[in-house]
Amino acid sequence: MNAAYQRLKTRHARIATLGEASAMLGWDASAMMPPGGGAARGDQLALLAGMMHDLAIAPEVTEDLAHAEADGEWDQANLALMRHAHIRATALPTALVEATSLANSACEKIWREARRTSDFAMVRPALEEVVRLQRETAQALSAALGLSPYDALMDGFQRGVTAAEVEPIFATYEQFLAAALPRALEIQAKRGPAIPLPGPFPVATQKAMAQAMSARMGLEYSHARLDESTHPFCGGTPSDVRITTRYHEGDVAQALLGVLHETGHALYERGLPEAFRRQPVGEAAGMAAHESQSLIIEMQACRGDDFLAFLGQQLLAGYGSDPAAYAGENLQKLWRHVAPGFIRVDADEITYPAHVILRFRLERALIAGELQVAELPGAWGEGLHRLLGITPPDDARGCLQDIHWHDGAFGYFPSYTLGAMAAAQLMKAARAATPGLDAALGQGDAAPLLGWLRANVHAAGSRLGFQDLLRAATGKPLDPSDFTAHLTRRYLTD
Amino acid sequence: MNAAYQRLKTRHARIATLGEASAMLGWDASAMMPPGGGAARGDQLALLAGMMHDLAIAPEVTEDLAHAEADGEWDQANLALMRHAHIRATALPTALVEATSLANSACEKIWREARRTSDFAMVRPALEEVVRLQRETAQALSAALGLSPYDALMDGFQRGVTAAEVEPIFATYEQFLAAALPRALEIQAKRGPAIPLPGPFPVATQKAMAQAMSARMGLEYSHARLDESTHPFCGGTPSDVRITTRYHEGDVAQALLGVLHETGHALYERGLPEAFRRQPVGEAAGMAAHESQSLIIEMQACRGDDFLAFLGQQLLAGYGSDPAAYAGENLQKLWRHVAPGFIRVDADEITYPAHVILRFRLERALIAGELQVAELPGAWGEGLHRLLGITPPDDARGCLQDIHWHDGAFGYFPSYTLGAMAAAQLMKAARAATPGLDAALGQGDAAPLLGWLRANVHAAGSRLGFQDLLRAATGKPLDPSDFTAHLTRRYLTD
Repeated sequence: MNAAYQRLKTRHARIATLGEASAMLGWDASAMMPPGGGAARGDQLALLAGMMHDLAIAPEVTEDLAHAEADGEWDQANLALMRHAHIRATALPTALVEATSLANSACEKIWREARRTSDFAMVRPALEEVVRLQRETAQALSAALGLSPYDALMDGFQRGVTAAEVEPIFATYEQFLAAALPRALEIQAKRGPAIPLPGPFPVATQKAMAQAMSARMGLEYSHARLDESTHPFCGGTPSDVRITTRYHEGDVAQALLGVLHETGHALYERGLPEAFRRQPVGEAAGMAAHESQSLIIEMQACRGDDFLAFLGQQLLAGYGSDPAAYAGENLQKLWRHVAPGFIRVDADEITYPAHVILRFRLERALIAGELQVAELPGAWGEGLHRLLGITPPDDARGCLQDIHWHDGAFGYFPSYTLGAMAAAQLMKAARAATPGLDAALGQGDAAPLLGWLRANVHAAGSRLGFQDLLRAATGKPLDPSDFTAHLTRRYLTD
Repeated sequence: MNAAYQRLKTRHARIATLGEASAMLGWDASAMMPPGGGAARGDQLALLAGMMHDLAIAPEVTEDLAHAEADGEWDQANLALMRHAHIRATALPTALVEATSLANSACEKIWREARRTSDFAMVRPALEEVVRLQRETAQALSAALGLSPYDALMDGFQRGVTAAEVEPIFATYEQFLAAALPRALEIQAKRGPAIPLPGPFPVATQKAMAQAMSARMGLEYSHARLDESTHPFCGGTPSDVRITTRYHEGDVAQALLGVLHETGHALYERGLPEAFRRQPVGEAAGMAAHESQSLIIEMQACRGDDFLAFLGQQLLAGYGSDPAAYAGENLQKLWRHVAPGFIRVDADEITYPAHVILRFRLERALIAGELQVAELPGAWGEGLHRLLGITPPDDARGCLQDIHWHDGAFGYFPSYTLGAMAAAQLMKAARAATPGLDAALGQGDAAPLLGWLRANVHAAGSRLGFQDLLRAATGKPLDPSDFTAHLTRRYLTD
């Protein structure tokens, strides 16, 4: 470890500390800020982003990277990540970065109105500009990173995963789905309808219960907060993590399961290695890894038979009504209901990947120039029909439903399904290594699961890429058959 | 307006924008942050403070200040404030700034325990180090600013007010008090005791009512928030101002009147000139000016006869009990009760200045080296006895009661009483210029008062110093006889 590397560590700690400040201001903007604070907040965040960028691309960095030497696996990985970040930060001309930022934010504004009125033509010119700049960005990053243009974009969300790896995984899932979906619907019909939960569910009780269940999963509220925002998220910093949700008096599931999902993200942040706090290697291993942690808590643990039985008792005690409605079996029917639909965020566990596969293929074609923005509504309808057998009645329920592309995020969507698959694979490994894991969940105790995740996932930071993280934790790279086996057990077994 | 001045404006806008980010993170630390976030927050705030300081003292600033030219009253005042800020920022060696910061924060920690156990000896060594560094700081600033050492410290809180101006004002008040206090107590005794307010006062109702009354004073909650913190304050930024309070179920007054006090501060921030946002001249005119705005709302307007009558009706409607207890006359007895006591923050309007005069004289002597830290408890007891005829039974109720000195704030205390006096003077001028001002307050309408304050105080930013601001608004510099006339009307008239 030489002086050049030490200087780089100091610089990255400064960048990360500014990033923490930004994260807090971003949380505040979504969860606390009165509307009149928006303009000033935009200036504050833009200034911090500019300062972080200036620190990242200063000429001294090039010099220090040329001479830096690091000892040991962790510091070597850290230095490699510094080099990678520097390539990404310096690959794009300032004019392109600024044009992209303006185009994204202009398009996002128009999109809000276009989605409301289901008017694709309204947003089309702005989206064309966004896509044009994304293609240019992808080209520049491609040259700098030695990746294909689309892979270079994906690398920004989940480093080291390529479309060539993803495509066969998704193709196999498409085949699985073709047989699994009708079978799941058939079995579901046989099981009979669920009893609706009576309600109403007072918001104060919902909040207390969501926080209590989140704490049971292992989130320490001496280092966390739970608040409300229009779009739930997990923000903040590893020592002060902020999760949000939305409450509806008539629906107990959305907030509760949403909080458990965000709790998975929060636990990952909490468990990142202290010794490399504010260093690249101390960060989470990417968006697919992050999603694996939210989904292992929400989908694998909390929607599993054991925890649902426990949760039903808690809900019954909290809302005091019909025991049959709160029986584990009924909650399974309610909260693992399969139904092909148009909206990704409302999708069940089996059909969700179809929404992701559709977007992955379309965005890849858009970036490659093989698909034009004008052709998007048509291609969307065809693609969804091929995957799920349904066609959206309008663009609001089609290609206008997600913010991502309209805000310039291309290459992000695969993370959702890679994360879902990784969650199943990690859960299988955790179960094998941890006797009594499910029995503990049945008592509302996630400690055995969390202990395994901390040791095998969280503590690794981003020392390992997504595939190597899975190899170290489960003995193999991403293996979608663990996910389909999980779905088969949960949905396809009489 | 030349290029050098333009560059300085851009630089100050960046410094101020970082200051806004810090203000928000500071608010969060007090009102929202879980305890586990403290260490990381300290790092974030220290980094931002360091960056602001680096921007302020960069060599280019010296260069630009040498060549800067500004046109018109506002920009000329702005440039003068930039020069003044630069002198202050560059007067202190970095080693002294860092030593001060460490000593203050070490002493403040020890003080919390020393106050709890009323153990002055415990904090004495740490306070000696704080005072030693404050003397050194005062000397360095004195040389740079051409002010006496104590004035140089006071200048950091309320630019341009000197101890030589303050001393005779305080001496006159001491004489007034000697006659006024026994007379006020006599009249109070004649009026008979107040009816205690029944209570309890549910926190949710208190919060709704405090916010409603604050909004009646003119605070727009599209640009503000009201939250809870251990020590109430007004923070945030002009477009997004954050006030806090504390609620007690058994006491409706503390939170309500505290919120109205912070509302006065908040209205000042909201009313600062938009055209010079993030420039020195667009900021508030100092701490005494700020306190005048909190006190004109709390003490002059809201504790005045007219508003108290209105407020009583609102409280009666909100808490639904004994009408006699909520009559304006009874609220006057309760919330304008005079009683000499040991604790500054609990003091009434007449005796409050005595607490400030005591501290002003002691801190002046400490900085001059005429008083040593070891002599503080004795000098405190003697001083308070001379002013109010009482002697604190222990140091917790004596020289350990305030955080200020233990956190390195010397020269701040006079602002409280200068502000109280200015509030009376401004209220008199506002009344003279605004027919119907009190009648409107009797209807819960502060618009006439706020309109006058906006035009005559808030909109001036810091274009004028404290005394010139009063001259422009009232036709004369600080005249404490307006304050004593106010006290005479309120407390000394049968």
